Amino acid sequence: MAKIDKLVVVGVGLIGGSFALALKGAKRCGQVVGAGRSAANLNTAMGRGAIDSFEADAAKAVRGANLVLVAAPVAQFEKIFLEIKADLGPDTLVMDAGSTKRDVVAAARKGLGAKIAQFIPAHPIAGAEKSGAAAASAELFRGRRVVLTALAENRKEDVEAVADLWTAIGARVSRMTPEEHDGVFAAVSHLPHLLAFALVSDLGGRADAAKLFGYAAGGFRDFTRIASSDPEMWRDICVANSDQLLKEVSRFSGELEKIEKLLQTGDAATLEKLFAGARAARERWLKGEYE
Amino acid sequence: MAKIDKLVVVGVGLIGGSFALALKGAKRCGQVVGAGRSAANLNTAMGRGAIDSFEADAAKAVRGANLVLVAAPVAQFEKIFLEIKADLGPDTLVMDAGSTKRDVVAAARKGLGAKIAQFIPAHPIAGAEKSGAAAASAELFRGRRVVLTALAENRKEDVEAVADLWTAIGARVSRMTPEEHDGVFAAVSHLPHLLAFALVSDLGGRADAAKLFGYAAGGFRDFTRIASSDPEMWRDICVANSDQLLKEVSRFSGELEKIEKLLQTGDAATLEKLFAGARAARERWLKGEYE
Repeated sequence: MAKIDKLVVVGVGLIGGSFALALKGAKRCGQVVGAGRSAANLNTAMGRGAIDSFEADAAKAVRGANLVLVAAPVAQFEKIFLEIKADLGPDTLVMDAGSTKRDVVAAARKGLGAKIAQFIPAHPIAGAEKSGAAAASAELFRGRRVVLTALAENRKEDVEAVADLWTAIGARVSRMTPEEHDGVFAAVSHLPHLLAFALVSDLGGRADAAKLFGYAAGGFRDFTRIASSDPEMWRDICVANSDQLLKEVSRFSGELEKIEKLLQTGDAATLEKLFAGARAARERWLKGEYE
Repeated sequence: MAKIDKLVVVGVGLIGGSFALALKGAKRCGQVVGAGRSAANLNTAMGRGAIDSFEADAAKAVRGANLVLVAAPVAQFEKIFLEIKADLGPDTLVMDAGSTKRDVVAAARKGLGAKIAQFIPAHPIAGAEKSGAAAASAELFRGRRVVLTALAENRKEDVEAVADLWTAIGARVSRMTPEEHDGVFAAVSHLPHLLAFALVSDLGGRADAAKLFGYAAGGFRDFTRIASSDPEMWRDICVANSDQLLKEVSRFSGELEKIEKLLQTGDAATLEKLFAGARAARERWLKGEYE
């Protein structure tokens, strides 16, 4: 798959639209056909040049495709896989862009059945509060990580072909099992989102919410930026990864209890040590020492 | 105090240095004398033009001053107030810039004794990860809030004079009691900082920290930005405001437990509602509807 003659994007939002624009920019694909729920969004995608045409019927769209990227909300995956299964040629690869992987693999096994070997699960780490084709950019994946969680059934050369496409548009590809993926992202992405949603939800529900928000400043703005993320998408992520996420919530609650005790006993020295350790870890991360 | 002939800044860091630069820029002060622990930092402040001279001895520095801004770490306040007390003229006003107010007022009552009426507590909401005179800027307070928590002993015209100075350098002045102040900031500032420190501290202490941080992305970076804050300053804030902060930690733990139950029962609809409510509250805030 040095070059894709026909790319189909099911769900031409920020991720799907950006993938199409980036591949076009890298001269790695010919025509792009879009499919999705919203005609308005598909028209926007046409206007942006992300897709060349679109089909209301995803099954019809995938005929003759080299690659199908399913970038719709994860909750719709099984239905989409079922819809396109019969029309997938033997050499058509299917890839997703979902933020969780165990549930996506399960949906693909159900939906694609015997064609599961053609499905390569992928998670580009490139979220943003913005969504929809209007926000798509050919540069979205540059320097970003993409995690491939290949299946035992996948052909080695297919996984490599897909990895090569991501590399061509500037992404840094790494590989994990679906289980490992969901554990890592529960800790560094799903839990922080949950904490931000929880804080803003609690403050917003108070009688003196207006006063409280009135004094919130830059630190609060950055801390809660991810609480402006799409509620539907995050509902699906949290439910799909609830077991790993619950482990992280429980672990975090334990950490919070530890700090509660330090506050209760006025143990300033241990508190400072904890803060200093956090700052040092974050500085190491920012310097790239964890890469 | 339309114009200050002599301003003394004890602790010429980000806040103290910026205050001096801003007042000079607004042509609201003549000479600025610095005092502080670090000669290197005071030399930097001289180089930046924030101060015109400095004194090793704070008591000597405050002689003949119209206004003394104490912008050192809050834990040093009582000692500083004791040091300068005898040398404060009857018309010299003293102001602080601490992030907590009940403990600062208590320190001022102990340190300044009978001169407490000359002390006007202030909290400019303009933190940053950067610190020291090198980071000071005349524009730091533009558009930012400053909370004055005036004392019963303060003369009305003194509080107005101080408010007028903050207004002159672009800040938006509001007034609260010290109790009200500490409650509000426990919720919108101290708790978020604690949560960010807790998350990064926990991740940094894990055996697989390098892997986890390796997959942390933009959302994580913003969420944890405040975990790069000064550990000494945040130790003092958390200890000084521990009662209000403990109330907020307990409340947040309750919110987290509620969400834990939603995850355990797979209650996707309520989870989405909570996320959507948080996003809507944040959007209202960003639109300024809470001002």
